[in-house]
Amino acid sequence: MVTLVYLAAKMDDDANGSAGEYFPDIGVISYKPDARPDETLVFKHYNAQEVVMGRTMEDWCRFSVVYWHTFRGTGLDPFGAGTIIRHWDDGSETVDNAKRRLRAAFEFFSKLGNKYWTFHDRDLAPEGKNLAESNANLDALADLAERLQQRTGVKLLWATSNLFSHPRYMHGAATSSDAHVTAYAAAQVKKCMEVAHRLGAENFVFWGGREGYHSLLNTDVRKELDNFAAFFRMVIAYKEKIGFRGQLLIEPKPKEPTRHQYDYDAQTVMAFLHTYGLEKHFKLNIEPNHTTLAGHPHEHDILFASAFKMLGSIDANTGSPDLGWDTDQFPMDIRHATAIMKVVIEQGGLSPGGLNFDAKVRRESTELADMFIAHIAAMDTLARGLKNAANIISDGILKKSLQKRYLSWESGVGARIVAGQSSLEECEQLIHEKGNPNPPSAHQEHFEAIFNHYV
Amino acid sequence: MVTLVYLAAKMDDDANGSAGEYFPDIGVISYKPDARPDETLVFKHYNAQEVVMGRTMEDWCRFSVVYWHTFRGTGLDPFGAGTIIRHWDDGSETVDNAKRRLRAAFEFFSKLGNKYWTFHDRDLAPEGKNLAESNANLDALADLAERLQQRTGVKLLWATSNLFSHPRYMHGAATSSDAHVTAYAAAQVKKCMEVAHRLGAENFVFWGGREGYHSLLNTDVRKELDNFAAFFRMVIAYKEKIGFRGQLLIEPKPKEPTRHQYDYDAQTVMAFLHTYGLEKHFKLNIEPNHTTLAGHPHEHDILFASAFKMLGSIDANTGSPDLGWDTDQFPMDIRHATAIMKVVIEQGGLSPGGLNFDAKVRRESTELADMFIAHIAAMDTLARGLKNAANIISDGILKKSLQKRYLSWESGVGARIVAGQSSLEECEQLIHEKGNPNPPSAHQEHFEAIFNHYV
Amino acid sequence: MVTLVYLAAKMDDDANGSAGEYFPDIGVISYKPDARPDETLVFKHYNAQEVVMGRTMEDWCRFSVVYWHTFRGTGLDPFGAGTIIRHWDDGSETVDNAKRRLRAAFEFFSKLGNKYWTFHDRDLAPEGKNLAESNANLDALADLAERLQQRTGVKLLWATSNLFSHPRYMHGAATSSDAHVTAYAAAQVKKCMEVAHRLGAENFVFWGGREGYHSLLNTDVRKELDNFAAFFRMVIAYKEKIGFRGQLLIEPKPKEPTRHQYDYDAQTVMAFLHTYGLEKHFKLNIEPNHTTLAGHPHEHDILFASAFKMLGSIDANTGSPDLGWDTDQFPMDIRHATAIMKVVIEQGGLSPGGLNFDAKVRRESTELADMFIAHIAAMDTLARGLKNAANIISDGILKKSLQKRYLSWESGVGARIVAGQSSLEECEQLIHEKGNPNPPSAHQEHFEAIFNHYV
Amino acid sequence: MVTLVYLAAKMDDDANGSAGEYFPDIGVISYKPDARPDETLVFKHYNAQEVVMGRTMEDWCRFSVVYWHTFRGTGLDPFGAGTIIRHWDDGSETVDNAKRRLRAAFEFFSKLGNKYWTFHDRDLAPEGKNLAESNANLDALADLAERLQQRTGVKLLWATSNLFSHPRYMHGAATSSDAHVTAYAAAQVKKCMEVAHRLGAENFVFWGGREGYHSLLNTDVRKELDNFAAFFRMVIAYKEKIGFRGQLLIEPKPKEPTRHQYDYDAQTVMAFLHTYGLEKHFKLNIEPNHTTLAGHPHEHDILFASAFKMLGSIDANTGSPDLGWDTDQFPMDIRHATAIMKVVIEQGGLSPGGLNFDAKVRRESTELADMFIAHIAAMDTLARGLKNAANIISDGILKKSLQKRYLSWESGVGARIVAGQSSLEECEQLIHEKGNPNPPSAHQEHFEAIFNHYV
Repeated sequence: MVTLVYLAAKMDDDANGSAGEYFPDIGVISYKPDARPDETLVFKHYNAQEVVMGRTMEDWCRFSVVYWHTFRGTGLDPFGAGTIIRHWDDGSETVDNAKRRLRAAFEFFSKLGNKYWTFHDRDLAPEGKNLAESNANLDALADLAERLQQRTGVKLLWATSNLFSHPRYMHGAATSSDAHVTAYAAAQVKKCMEVAHRLGAENFVFWGGREGYHSLLNTDVRKELDNFAAFFRMVIAYKEKIGFRGQLLIEPKPKEPTRHQYDYDAQTVMAFLHTYGLEKHFKLNIEPNHTTLAGHPHEHDILFASAFKMLGSIDANTGSPDLGWDTDQFPMDIRHATAIMKVVIEQGGLSPGGLNFDAKVRRESTELADMFIAHIAAMDTLARGLKNAANIISDGILKKSLQKRYLSWESGVGARIVAGQSSLEECEQLIHEKGNPNPPSAHQEHFEAIFNHYV
Repeated sequence: MVTLVYLAAKMDDDANGSAGEYFPDIGVISYKPDARPDETLVFKHYNAQEVVMGRTMEDWCRFSVVYWHTFRGTGLDPFGAGTIIRHWDDGSETVDNAKRRLRAAFEFFSKLGNKYWTFHDRDLAPEGKNLAESNANLDALADLAERLQQRTGVKLLWATSNLFSHPRYMHGAATSSDAHVTAYAAAQVKKCMEVAHRLGAENFVFWGGREGYHSLLNTDVRKELDNFAAFFRMVIAYKEKIGFRGQLLIEPKPKEPTRHQYDYDAQTVMAFLHTYGLEKHFKLNIEPNHTTLAGHPHEHDILFASAFKMLGSIDANTGSPDLGWDTDQFPMDIRHATAIMKVVIEQGGLSPGGLNFDAKVRRESTELADMFIAHIAAMDTLARGLKNAANIISDGILKKSLQKRYLSWESGVGARIVAGQSSLEECEQLIHEKGNPNPPSAHQEHFEAIFNHYV
Repeated sequence: MVTLVYLAAKMDDDANGSAGEYFPDIGVISYKPDARPDETLVFKHYNAQEVVMGRTMEDWCRFSVVYWHTFRGTGLDPFGAGTIIRHWDDGSETVDNAKRRLRAAFEFFSKLGNKYWTFHDRDLAPEGKNLAESNANLDALADLAERLQQRTGVKLLWATSNLFSHPRYMHGAATSSDAHVTAYAAAQVKKCMEVAHRLGAENFVFWGGREGYHSLLNTDVRKELDNFAAFFRMVIAYKEKIGFRGQLLIEPKPKEPTRHQYDYDAQTVMAFLHTYGLEKHFKLNIEPNHTTLAGHPHEHDILFASAFKMLGSIDANTGSPDLGWDTDQFPMDIRHATAIMKVVIEQGGLSPGGLNFDAKVRRESTELADMFIAHIAAMDTLARGLKNAANIISDGILKKSLQKRYLSWESGVGARIVAGQSSLEECEQLIHEKGNPNPPSAHQEHFEAIFNHYV
Repeated sequence: MVTLVYLAAKMDDDANGSAGEYFPDIGVISYKPDARPDETLVFKHYNAQEVVMGRTMEDWCRFSVVYWHTFRGTGLDPFGAGTIIRHWDDGSETVDNAKRRLRAAFEFFSKLGNKYWTFHDRDLAPEGKNLAESNANLDALADLAERLQQRTGVKLLWATSNLFSHPRYMHGAATSSDAHVTAYAAAQVKKCMEVAHRLGAENFVFWGGREGYHSLLNTDVRKELDNFAAFFRMVIAYKEKIGFRGQLLIEPKPKEPTRHQYDYDAQTVMAFLHTYGLEKHFKLNIEPNHTTLAGHPHEHDILFASAFKMLGSIDANTGSPDLGWDTDQFPMDIRHATAIMKVVIEQGGLSPGGLNFDAKVRRESTELADMFIAHIAAMDTLARGLKNAANIISDGILKKSLQKRYLSWESGVGARIVAGQSSLEECEQLIHEKGNPNPPSAHQEHFEAIFNHYV
């Protein structure tokens, strides 16, 4: 089905084994705007060096590939075994196998052309029989990652500790009912942050997949949230001690696997941070599929986080609105991409964050080519979104319409309320004098029509 | 179908017209634990003066009847006209008609036996052609309400301004795009708070039904939230100025009528209050049907608000979990009632808040008797919940099981983390010494079985 | 905000009062593909006479304007009064006012350029004090409608009886617990069908908004469904008796206002029709906002109904996926429009059905211009969808990819299973001989990328 | 936490290894109505031989334990590894290990006292390297199962083929895009039905977990549904050929793992069966957690299936209404249990179906005792439901109230409509004569209060 576009791969042998060892039939992906729809191994819209509103597309997008789905995913789901077998992966939990995976990943990055990657500690290196062994495994992989980063120029957008997959974390990690487990989680984060620091991670993420409750009957939520804050205070102290400069990010998700996750959505995390005085130390890593699971529109948390200067990074993906679980699909909707990239441009970019593809090929998409197809199609979608958003902003029609709606706040009682200079008494007096208000149409359909013009 | 239990009504003539003028076939509702299931005009479980854990049931429950649904509801819905006609209501928007309704309401309260009521300003008195006339109408009704409160002993749990029904509020009130509208809202709140103060309201509620957005394309959310905070600052200033001592409450709701309401849920409101430094001035009025619309379990927001000492009052109602809108049904589920009353007892009661029936008879429940049946059945449900919760707490089995789960936090590294005395380094050292944790079963099904024992 | 494009209105005086009486500032809407995004009172994509795949766009789309939302809607919602006031509507329930509305409607149709309209009997003419008076009112309006149809060439896509708004229908109409109500509904349908016949309706729709249950405790669902079927049998008999040739359509909706509506979704209605032997007499009128409320993807019911040759007509609208109620928004999503129009082309068009805008301007869109803007933007969206779908079909890439997936069913055991000639034994034998199957990738992301090429 | 009640286990040595080999600390579960809430290893409500409305509780309930969750579940979820390790299970996919599991299961059944069990073919015996080996493995386990059934008296409620877990079924089984896969599925069902026949299965279930679509872009739904029907025709032919008398059952589920499953809910399956003329051959196996995922109230599908004489069996479980995936929790809600058992009594019992616990202990419930606790608490819940339902039915108050609502259908025009003897004309005439209807209150809250009396 795929028309392959073969281009010479230019990869360093030492770094990734050999040129084309892992994806021998696929070359470096190029930009070809006139490609036919059945040729998907090219970009039709994403042109990394093309300048949009004063920056390259690469600079606006800061695309990142995730290691867990793309190099550790097997297609396993609650009702079926894995369907995806990669020829370089012998299925063993050994350091050698882990290294082979990492070389394949860097070959993938080099051919796809993304400049960033992300990982969990336990994706990268196998868990050992005790912490010391796990840490040694992680060091071994970090050594290779460091070399591969240097050779390819691909950088680490962020790292994170997997504090949810191992059975020990079944009751949570920072919020476990068992303090021994929390201590283990603390030790794991310590090591992971050291590795992140060494690899030049620009951010460090916390996703508390098991920090929450299944039943309110057997959970002391206040005690657990107090412990959550205490855990973060230890993290901040250690970050400062070792001089790690990456941005700390919390990734909200409302539920799944936990019935209720404490980091429900952007504003819930803000409530937590303020309650415990932690708001200066964290920003948010927003994933739209989590936002929609929380009952909000796709771009809601991105926009709200940005409005309060808390948007740190984006896990670019999507779900199916008719499903109640996280499907981590590649983002393919041009409207959504436009809405998101509009926020990104308006806040002046995402750096040090990026657009991280926390997305997985469907378990029925079993070929190697599907890995490329999915990323290319998603990057193209976001590239279209970026261009659309740039057009919206350059034209200024939408912004002018919006400003017109709020004009009454620029002067008179509106301006006085904004400035904290008015009072209920003044307002009452004004109404007695000026009479009943009669607000104008909000023209929602017109705004939608304007938006459609650019999509 | 209803076996009426006739008892002499003891009502003051001046206060409510005459004894039994409005509900002539229905007497004061009595407690009759051996009633048959087809006799619903008695209480089977709620015995106001019965003492439970050191307080009367009346004191724990502080039941309140809402004026809007119960005396202004017509059964109107988006697909049909009103179905409910009350013989005392001629449908006119006059002060005389409003007074007749109020007398009927106080006869209802006196027969039902609730000690509190709640209202919106515009429920109570008709809107006039301008603010001065609206205020005069409200004063006329407040005069009558004051007399009726004195004669019957029924008190005002809370009042609130209706800032969502009038077309002027279509874009919001405190967060309208039109400053003139916000000024009107400010004037309306000023008057309503004066009336609340005069009538001895124990709380004052804000429900921002139109404070939110329908489309992110035509909304400046940050500007609107800034204005929201500015509005509340004017409210606090005026409250202090007039010496009103009632508790200010914000009632979260995620959506409906607005697509997204800024006061989404308990924690979103906490985020807002902290962001703008307003957290000392407000508590929350939690409505479970709003909680479930936000994607949480029934008692979630009640429990979370209480955990952070922010639970001010409860709008006792329920929805249907298969529906995506607010049905405001009377609470009839004994499990839910037990879970809620357990929180109420554990935080030492709700005062100055209460259990306010923000619930409406179905639009197909068109008889006068249905008004009584619905309230009685709900009060009985909550009374069963109260007794169940008291048994759970007295027996102590659930609490002991819970404490056992968290035992490891009482000493060693657990206690040190709690006290802020530990560090990632200490935790790592501990794991190297003690090895991998192995947390025990959470026994969720056992907790559920214990709970079922009391239901 | 709107740049008006004034063109001479060509309307017959007798038919609609005068040219431009109701929308004096708005002329006939023209096609202007180079319009700027702030000029919405033109079509940029919909060009009625343009030929696409052998038919005019007008012919494929068969756009219809609904009378209820567009000429009877006021913006009333469960939390607020109407916001929309039309200058021709004095608010009275008189025949004169009804006629003025109808004239305004036909002026609107003529300027917008849609060729079809739809109504409920009670939208068109006010309910009288008894059935005879209601019928007389309906006749009076039908007289005018007939003349206006003749003068303008606008035709009646379908009519329907409103069997849900009046309080008498609170327990349902055909499935009411009260047989007297069902008899009234039967009488109302009789008259409405006579009027539909006279006005040349091409279809007749049943939407059972109150046919369902709120509580399973007080409902005998089997009895009600038996009565539902008996009701339809009376309808079929009368249709044949008077020789009405329009297609009967049932419109599924899962819930709202009823908790559970018997016509839940397309397949539930098919189950009902087959169970009662009515499947030859009905097709379906599918509304995507109802489909999504039932938990399906936007185009699911359209596609499934079409697959079983049951797609009769489409109520073109959309909802917000994060909301649990019917918002009846104008369809503005180009992806959705493309998916829907692909089904329409593939089944050879919708005739005698059409694309009926069962959509309403937001209650905050209060200007006359918003009525036009909303329809134009939606027609443009569907026109883009039509062109996209035509390109997909003409290119044939998507179809070829699909056929390739199912190739194994064209021969061998696949073909034998399809033909009913295989057996479990043969299959077992085949597996013993040929071994384990190894199905290829489904390439979902590639299909999505191909689709995106055309959007 | 658990107070164990030790009673002598009476188990045949040959059958299950030895008395108490697998659960040595747990004896036969007894009935002890005065147990304290922390003693859960007894029944407080379920007394197998107690007669309720003329039958033993055992006879009404026909409790069945599932093999997959209870003996093959590990607590694996999409975000974490298995947490549950059973001492008899060495994790290997060997016949020996499979036999050990089966002996443990029959010891469990004997101690718990359930009289039925259910399995999937691939739960019971490991998949071999080809079909012949898989079949041989299954035969080996069937031999043991047959002996264990004879010795313990536990019977096979139903068997089913697992047509969803193996990667080959990723695109579906009967509806796969690959005919070779469908042939494999046919062969697998053939063998499983032979085993079911031999073991005396009273039913045979089809759950089409992967029969559906993920994307409408790459799916030909009509072709797949045609194939689905063709597959079932082969099944029916073979069933008749071998003389298997068990009832064929289809288990609806709306989604998960598939985005849309063809057997969406009870009425969707009925539509399918009627469309393809298969309605005589199948009944339904209803699972409430699937019903709620489809957007219906908990008992909806049970009640609707029963109303159309299609309720064959029940998978007794529950979900959390705030979650959008299948959690397969043990049913612990007494209201739900009452509503379900009322349907069961009213249709005269479930035989040959039963109440099958398609439920799993939480992945945090890791002790052996939790297996017992969960089943006991659920059986007790359903036993309370049974007794409550029997009281409701015996008292007759609810039924009398219901009959009163529908009284108008017993005579006059109501009876004539029911009998198919009326017409639209007759109805119109009646309304002209009798005037407007005025239906009475539906008294929903009163029905709820009556119901609460029995809960």
